[in-house]
Amino acid sequence: MSTAEESGRDAIVRAARRAFTLRPYAEVTLRGIAADAGVSPSLIVKRFGSKEGLFNTVADFQPAADALFAAEPAALGRHLVLTMVRLRDELRGDPLLRVVFSLGIDDERTLLRERFREQVTARLAALLAGADPELRAELIAGQLLGLGATLSLHRPDGAGTRTRPGRLADLYAPGLQGLIDGGAGRHDPREPVSVGG
Amino acid sequence: MSTAEESGRDAIVRAARRAFTLRPYAEVTLRGIAADAGVSPSLIVKRFGSKEGLFNTVADFQPAADALFAAEPAALGRHLVLTMVRLRDELRGDPLLRVVFSLGIDDERTLLRERFREQVTARLAALLAGADPELRAELIAGQLLGLGATLSLHRPDGAGTRTRPGRLADLYAPGLQGLIDGGAGRHDPREPVSVGG
Repeated sequence: MSTAEESGRDAIVRAARRAFTLRPYAEVTLRGIAADAGVSPSLIVKRFGSKEGLFNTVADFQPAADALFAAEPAALGRHLVLTMVRLRDELRGDPLLRVVFSLGIDDERTLLRERFREQVTARLAALLAGADPELRAELIAGQLLGLGATLSLHRPDGAGTRTRPGRLADLYAPGLQGLIDGGAGRHDPREPVSVGG
Repeated sequence: MSTAEESGRDAIVRAARRAFTLRPYAEVTLRGIAADAGVSPSLIVKRFGSKEGLFNTVADFQPAADALFAAEPAALGRHLVLTMVRLRDELRGDPLLRVVFSLGIDDERTLLRERFREQVTARLAALLAGADPELRAELIAGQLLGLGATLSLHRPDGAGTRTRPGRLADLYAPGLQGLIDGGAGRHDPREPVSVGG
């Protein structure tokens, strides 16, 4: 794929994210997304097939979940922070936060929330040993969403923006790792910990 | 104030929150807010004076910050979780989360983010002893926003919704308290901890 094609695709996806996040599904048009992205509506049809196809691409949390959850539970807290920072950098945007934007409007896009619950929370719960895995998965998802939210809110000159990822992980991973381990929260984030408890 | 007057005021504030979160400031009208709230535009003028007055009411994080930060640092982590849950219940909505919704749109409502940074993050940083108070305040704000986000996302039948506040605090407070103490994260959340680190 050429660089121009890449950037056309990226522009469409970004415009679609904005549109589906800010407007009821029924009000979103491919023509509007095309205008926002600076491409022709026919290019969107060629690439994504339909409005539904485009929504499904934009609402898919699975690639982010694949990357975020690719670590053993004992090392997952730190991995989550470092992966989150890397994904935000690569995507020039947050991989999860659009589900929170969608809370502002009640409409069909509860579909976005259902996807999130399936692809992020339920998948995470299945990885957790110990008591209350669903509850702990919800709280871990909350801390991940909160990390992205605070980095975005305090851009461009916030302290988090100026901090190297390793230091962010030193500070933010212990809370996550405590929830992964079972909520005990007694460990040094820089050392491996045993699972469960 | 009568119960009817109370509920009229609440309806106006809720409608105004929706409007200012979802639309550019210039596009929001008192007429639209009045229609959404089921009151007359003149009632809004009588109560709030103007669109700007209403925006200032809706964009004010100070009452929430007053409640959230009313504990000694050694007990603040647990207090933050319990207060957050109580405020969400009392307000029938989240006291902070609208600043995250506002990230979906670029416009004058960066004002909302500036308020948040002043009234929540900067105030919190001033309460923290130890290294990197601004960074730790941003991460604490992130965990608070994340708690509200995940409780809202997993409504109405999520595990967090069915869990008593004390258990939520057992699980979620250690990460907050670690950031308050300086990021060490080595303590039992159910026992007092020393400040600094």
